[in-house]
Amino acid sequence: MSISNAPKAPHFNVTSPAQYVVHIEINRPDKLNAFYDPMWHELKALIDFFSHDPETRAIVISGAGDRAFTAGLDVQAASNPETSALSSKQQSDPSRRATTLRRHILELQDVISSVARCEKPTIACMHGYAYGLAVDLSSACDIRLCAPDTKFCIKEVDIGLAADVGTLSRLPKVVGLTSWCKEVTLSARPFGAEEALHNNFVSRVVPGSKKDLLEAGVELAKYIASKSPVAVQGTKNILDAAYARSVEDNLNYTAVWNAAMLQSSDTERAMLSGLKKRTPTFEKL
Amino acid sequence: MSISNAPKAPHFNVTSPAQYVVHIEINRPDKLNAFYDPMWHELKALIDFFSHDPETRAIVISGAGDRAFTAGLDVQAASNPETSALSSKQQSDPSRRATTLRRHILELQDVISSVARCEKPTIACMHGYAYGLAVDLSSACDIRLCAPDTKFCIKEVDIGLAADVGTLSRLPKVVGLTSWCKEVTLSARPFGAEEALHNNFVSRVVPGSKKDLLEAGVELAKYIASKSPVAVQGTKNILDAAYARSVEDNLNYTAVWNAAMLQSSDTERAMLSGLKKRTPTFEKL
Amino acid sequence: MSISNAPKAPHFNVTSPAQYVVHIEINRPDKLNAFYDPMWHELKALIDFFSHDPETRAIVISGAGDRAFTAGLDVQAASNPETSALSSKQQSDPSRRATTLRRHILELQDVISSVARCEKPTIACMHGYAYGLAVDLSSACDIRLCAPDTKFCIKEVDIGLAADVGTLSRLPKVVGLTSWCKEVTLSARPFGAEEALHNNFVSRVVPGSKKDLLEAGVELAKYIASKSPVAVQGTKNILDAAYARSVEDNLNYTAVWNAAMLQSSDTERAMLSGLKKRTPTFEKL
Amino acid sequence: MSISNAPKAPHFNVTSPAQYVVHIEINRPDKLNAFYDPMWHELKALIDFFSHDPETRAIVISGAGDRAFTAGLDVQAASNPETSALSSKQQSDPSRRATTLRRHILELQDVISSVARCEKPTIACMHGYAYGLAVDLSSACDIRLCAPDTKFCIKEVDIGLAADVGTLSRLPKVVGLTSWCKEVTLSARPFGAEEALHNNFVSRVVPGSKKDLLEAGVELAKYIASKSPVAVQGTKNILDAAYARSVEDNLNYTAVWNAAMLQSSDTERAMLSGLKKRTPTFEKL
Amino acid sequence: MSISNAPKAPHFNVTSPAQYVVHIEINRPDKLNAFYDPMWHELKALIDFFSHDPETRAIVISGAGDRAFTAGLDVQAASNPETSALSSKQQSDPSRRATTLRRHILELQDVISSVARCEKPTIACMHGYAYGLAVDLSSACDIRLCAPDTKFCIKEVDIGLAADVGTLSRLPKVVGLTSWCKEVTLSARPFGAEEALHNNFVSRVVPGSKKDLLEAGVELAKYIASKSPVAVQGTKNILDAAYARSVEDNLNYTAVWNAAMLQSSDTERAMLSGLKKRTPTFEKL
Amino acid sequence: MSISNAPKAPHFNVTSPAQYVVHIEINRPDKLNAFYDPMWHELKALIDFFSHDPETRAIVISGAGDRAFTAGLDVQAASNPETSALSSKQQSDPSRRATTLRRHILELQDVISSVARCEKPTIACMHGYAYGLAVDLSSACDIRLCAPDTKFCIKEVDIGLAADVGTLSRLPKVVGLTSWCKEVTLSARPFGAEEALHNNFVSRVVPGSKKDLLEAGVELAKYIASKSPVAVQGTKNILDAAYARSVEDNLNYTAVWNAAMLQSSDTERAMLSGLKKRTPTFEKL
Repeated sequence: MSISNAPKAPHFNVTSPAQYVVHIEINRPDKLNAFYDPMWHELKALIDFFSHDPETRAIVISGAGDRAFTAGLDVQAASNPETSALSSKQQSDPSRRATTLRRHILELQDVISSVARCEKPTIACMHGYAYGLAVDLSSACDIRLCAPDTKFCIKEVDIGLAADVGTLSRLPKVVGLTSWCKEVTLSARPFGAEEALHNNFVSRVVPGSKKDLLEAGVELAKYIASKSPVAVQGTKNILDAAYARSVEDNLNYTAVWNAAMLQSSDTERAMLSGLKKRTPTFEKL
Repeated sequence: MSISNAPKAPHFNVTSPAQYVVHIEINRPDKLNAFYDPMWHELKALIDFFSHDPETRAIVISGAGDRAFTAGLDVQAASNPETSALSSKQQSDPSRRATTLRRHILELQDVISSVARCEKPTIACMHGYAYGLAVDLSSACDIRLCAPDTKFCIKEVDIGLAADVGTLSRLPKVVGLTSWCKEVTLSARPFGAEEALHNNFVSRVVPGSKKDLLEAGVELAKYIASKSPVAVQGTKNILDAAYARSVEDNLNYTAVWNAAMLQSSDTERAMLSGLKKRTPTFEKL
Repeated sequence: MSISNAPKAPHFNVTSPAQYVVHIEINRPDKLNAFYDPMWHELKALIDFFSHDPETRAIVISGAGDRAFTAGLDVQAASNPETSALSSKQQSDPSRRATTLRRHILELQDVISSVARCEKPTIACMHGYAYGLAVDLSSACDIRLCAPDTKFCIKEVDIGLAADVGTLSRLPKVVGLTSWCKEVTLSARPFGAEEALHNNFVSRVVPGSKKDLLEAGVELAKYIASKSPVAVQGTKNILDAAYARSVEDNLNYTAVWNAAMLQSSDTERAMLSGLKKRTPTFEKL
Repeated sequence: MSISNAPKAPHFNVTSPAQYVVHIEINRPDKLNAFYDPMWHELKALIDFFSHDPETRAIVISGAGDRAFTAGLDVQAASNPETSALSSKQQSDPSRRATTLRRHILELQDVISSVARCEKPTIACMHGYAYGLAVDLSSACDIRLCAPDTKFCIKEVDIGLAADVGTLSRLPKVVGLTSWCKEVTLSARPFGAEEALHNNFVSRVVPGSKKDLLEAGVELAKYIASKSPVAVQGTKNILDAAYARSVEDNLNYTAVWNAAMLQSSDTERAMLSGLKKRTPTFEKL
Repeated sequence: MSISNAPKAPHFNVTSPAQYVVHIEINRPDKLNAFYDPMWHELKALIDFFSHDPETRAIVISGAGDRAFTAGLDVQAASNPETSALSSKQQSDPSRRATTLRRHILELQDVISSVARCEKPTIACMHGYAYGLAVDLSSACDIRLCAPDTKFCIKEVDIGLAADVGTLSRLPKVVGLTSWCKEVTLSARPFGAEEALHNNFVSRVVPGSKKDLLEAGVELAKYIASKSPVAVQGTKNILDAAYARSVEDNLNYTAVWNAAMLQSSDTERAMLSGLKKRTPTFEKL
Repeated sequence: MSISNAPKAPHFNVTSPAQYVVHIEINRPDKLNAFYDPMWHELKALIDFFSHDPETRAIVISGAGDRAFTAGLDVQAASNPETSALSSKQQSDPSRRATTLRRHILELQDVISSVARCEKPTIACMHGYAYGLAVDLSSACDIRLCAPDTKFCIKEVDIGLAADVGTLSRLPKVVGLTSWCKEVTLSARPFGAEEALHNNFVSRVVPGSKKDLLEAGVELAKYIASKSPVAVQGTKNILDAAYARSVEDNLNYTAVWNAAMLQSSDTERAMLSGLKKRTPTFEKL
């Protein structure tokens, strides 16, 4: 059973609500699931594991407790010069302090990028506070669902900085550089579920409670997990590759990708099942 | 009369419902207009002809019969190892089979890309089933309209493969890499006309029957065909060039393009007509 | 006081409706604020000044009078061969005329690009006619609001040319290459405020009169101006840099940018104010 | 035998000097092998055929007669307004004439690009005059050898135009945008074999006569043809893909390419042959 | 006479050694032609003027006196905190100081980029010390010649900074990211004329004195100036555009460029002159 | 002392021949320093450590023994289906085998890319056999020196595959897509030191024995290590960023980078030392 082999991650609950589906729950509810140092490395370790795990075909990410997906960075921890690279005063030379900060940012970015690089589809199910890092993290997921009570905020401007672990690079890819995208990033103005839906940040607001949201997320994950993993993972890879490439370059990449993948037994199984109206099963990947 | 000079294409009906407007109808209604081998080459030959034809200023594409724009690839034909490159078992060496498959995919992509490269604006009018290839094809058109009964599906995952003739490269350009785009490509979940409109895939759902849809499509084509062809074709070229370029690079390209095109007699004719409230006429292009 | 030092620009009213907020009003209402030669240089001079002015943190752009944001290019002036490069007949050799035209277009593009390059956030508040150049100009702004009576039109096709000072390069970045984007650029069909909202061109239609619109615009500008200017200007720079880059390249750029910017006193001030529920103040930038 | 199936091309001699090696000789020696209309289409047909021909693994291109590889475009034919698109005076409107010219240039570019796209390695063996088109054509080949008597010239500036069928796009990829590259393209100054070698345009000047040059070219072609065609053709594809991509993007492309190609029987055959000091043979590709 | 209309630039001698040829000499020989504040703006004004001046077809750039092309930045002036942005201590906040520095660097870069953007070919003739800025400046020129006594050095590392006004962005385009390019930029090791020639930085070492060098530079400029200016300036524009684009994208750009430019009277004049062995003359551009 | 803290790497000798200089020697001389599984991870661990190690400013890489820098991949080990991913026969489905291979290639590429990403300059000193992987590895270094006896070969075609851990992506950046680059990659033809120098692959052939080569490499490393580490590491970062970017994009990146780095104490120290002819010392980085 793959979950039992997953890396230890005390700040996350990891379960398998259905075959081939993994549920990762951010688990620091007394702090609104805010992130501090140890959580970053735990998250990356989990994602890297499930990315290659043959028992996993779709991943749901949510937050524990009733109040928040995640309130973002734990600002109190981050403002402690003893423990935080961000607030450290050790280096007086601005160029050397810049080097330390650059390395630190690149390291945190790499955690969020590991979610984007995950070979398996990821579904963020958001409720309550979804502030700051919540947008960086969920923008790196493939699909975003939310509960009606979700309160979003691209909060970084409010703590005096430009968001630097992903939002400003991924939101324009997700929703475009629309007027709304500029408005909410430049102003740090909070917004609700309906506004997120209207502006294509989430694809659905699931009516009801957080429980209903999670059921919808797991249902979608199960649906995706029932399809050919060769087809699903190829689709994700090629779609992501399309960004910042010309159409022609990506078409060629697609042809090269499928030159191997169309030799899959999945294609034949899926085609025959379709013609014979049966449910196909696929080998692990 | 240009239509009479068009290449022979038995699986397509080609008519001219108005001056400068061409209507290409996919005509294999008993098979839900599903594509099999000969249709690809016919389609490319038609599009290449009208792309340069001076009598043509706008093209409407639709499907014959009441049931489908096109149900996509003819899976039964494609799963026949005797006739289909996809299912052929002739080559046992995976690298040589990969080469055959890559060349085959590039050839099919080139058909759909010929629609995208067409110098004249193209309008897809979709009704009934618009599955698989329907999305590849219509994503390569400039404008997409649909009837209220249209049932869309990015079906490829269901036949065990990543869509490879255009959808995964063009949909992110058309609607963005939104949560919805990922949801419908990763899951092969069908969706309807309203969902297509909400997510900016079509620009209008034309109320009423298929006949009303076609009237709306032809009306729009006539409206575009009444404008300066130099202006319209330049607008299409520059817009498409904008994708995957920096704004600065495309601005320079625009300046180079218009350095010739502003010497057109169309500009003077259109300006004077505008000032004098007359309807301008333009030379062929 | 910075406004008093601004360059002279007789065709624009420049005021400061709130601290750190500048309001630039296009002021040629008897001609529907249509642009002719002297206005281009005035606009660039103003924007370049406020881009670096330490007293300015947000800029509102609107049009004088009740009838128009701007009706676009003054076609009557542009069609005068005596005064207009566009209509000049001086050079008979098409390659030399092309060179003159290319240089002229690049010069006008550079005016609109100066708005896009402005280091401070810009908010376009549009009402009445917003035709042609109105879309080039507002697409170069960060945020677009409009009144319910706004009539938009990407008018260039109607005067026989492909839009060449920005719309065709920036609209696909702002709203995507959607079916709607193609429809309104290829056809020069006018559209209203609700359609602009549905298609993500504006982020809000402000109910009521032009006065209500301007109040909403200034309110948003004040809100942004109350935040850390280091954070706001960094956010704008990084967001714009994201377009036509890979996510990975922009993440690295973000890390390099913030390596200097996280050393700001703003970060500490903002964090402490947040924790202590006080309103922070920030040094000029 | 594949050569007998090749398309008819009266202006070219096509032979097979060794197994898997094809030799294409430009054959209009009385006109210094200058190109006129029918030759373009013949060349493209030949290259497209051998690109996919399983009997062909390397292609040598040279010119017939003692005096020239090719003197370039046949200027006399090109300056005849009756038969040449370049000199036609039919269209008086500059924008429509621009459209005709653009389509014509794109068509000629596509001929030269077919050489660059050819899946099999191409070796240009140049002697005597190698002017104008000679540089466009040979820059699209993979390897360039020349005789000591070769006289090169990027001649286009001398006929009043910027080279437009490939040199200006491929030479910077081949030799860099060096001082020399600018000097010979901006001035149309002729240069000899040693200068071509010093500036990395050719990889070898073969001492002796044209016969020695051809022997060297065929020898190299035979050597390449003795290697695994899967390895050779993959190497060419990936190298060409490297240009204008980031290293990271091309590394990923390489991994996707080799995911299929490492399953080749060639790898095992080549490895075992290497370990056992035998000469491997490979299936056709 | 165009030179008499050129902007005032006291630190530069501007002459016209031949028809259509301009010679700009850096004229601060007592300081080894080192640059300090006023010189930057003078240089940009001169280049911008001659870029569009119809009497100018080629530009030679050299340094006055026997000892140096230019020794680079005037370090003594740059290290004065009273007058130099680089050394100013006015702002204590590192983010605000970073903003000041960034704007200052962008301003200086824009001077060097104006040389690269100049529509007319530029030839750098270097002798004696060619340190630091000398490489930034000459890398932005099209052609580089030098005297045998030239001492080059990419000096910036020696003053504690990464070269930031062009060398690190243009040298890899000029000579490639070769081992040598890395060696001389990372180490600030001086190198001589022969090494510059071997590594393709200059295209010729002109034997003899500085006078011989200038004669060779002017001779080359005259040769270029005798050609069609439409052809020469188009060649420069398209070559520069090739960098960081795919070959396909640049081929299309070339076709669009030449669609106007092949309508030039120059093409006909040049072709006929060639056929009739006469020397053509061309209209101004 | 930083070397004593370095990760354990039994197949490498790590020494510090001078202050701030690290020497990494590939140490499997009985197998001509050929790579097998454990060596990849050791190399990455070492490079990652020294990349951030403040005691390290330059790295020399060489091979132990008299016979080889490295003979490349240990083909005997790689052809064992029990232990090698490359030759494993476990998965019969080609798409699943492709996935395993793709992941494996990406993992190996990441080792070589860690050398390219190393923040400190790297100098490859090559002698004897430098085959296959030797070129992948040294192309990822900044500077390449070699002994007169070095025998290079881009060997991959000879083992039936396209080089996939870096050569085909980095060699075109290092030497251009020259005729020679194509010749040696397509043919797997061996070449010597002088040919490597003529074609700009190495910057110097150090006369004499392997000992002389290492002395020259360490001398160069010491020279670089004596310069400002802020300047040197910034130079490397910006140079590498230049590849596959437009000049304009990289200039902007440079300005953002130096906005922090010019605040370094190194700049002042270096400038004053230069003016006072003293040797500067710099803080660790």
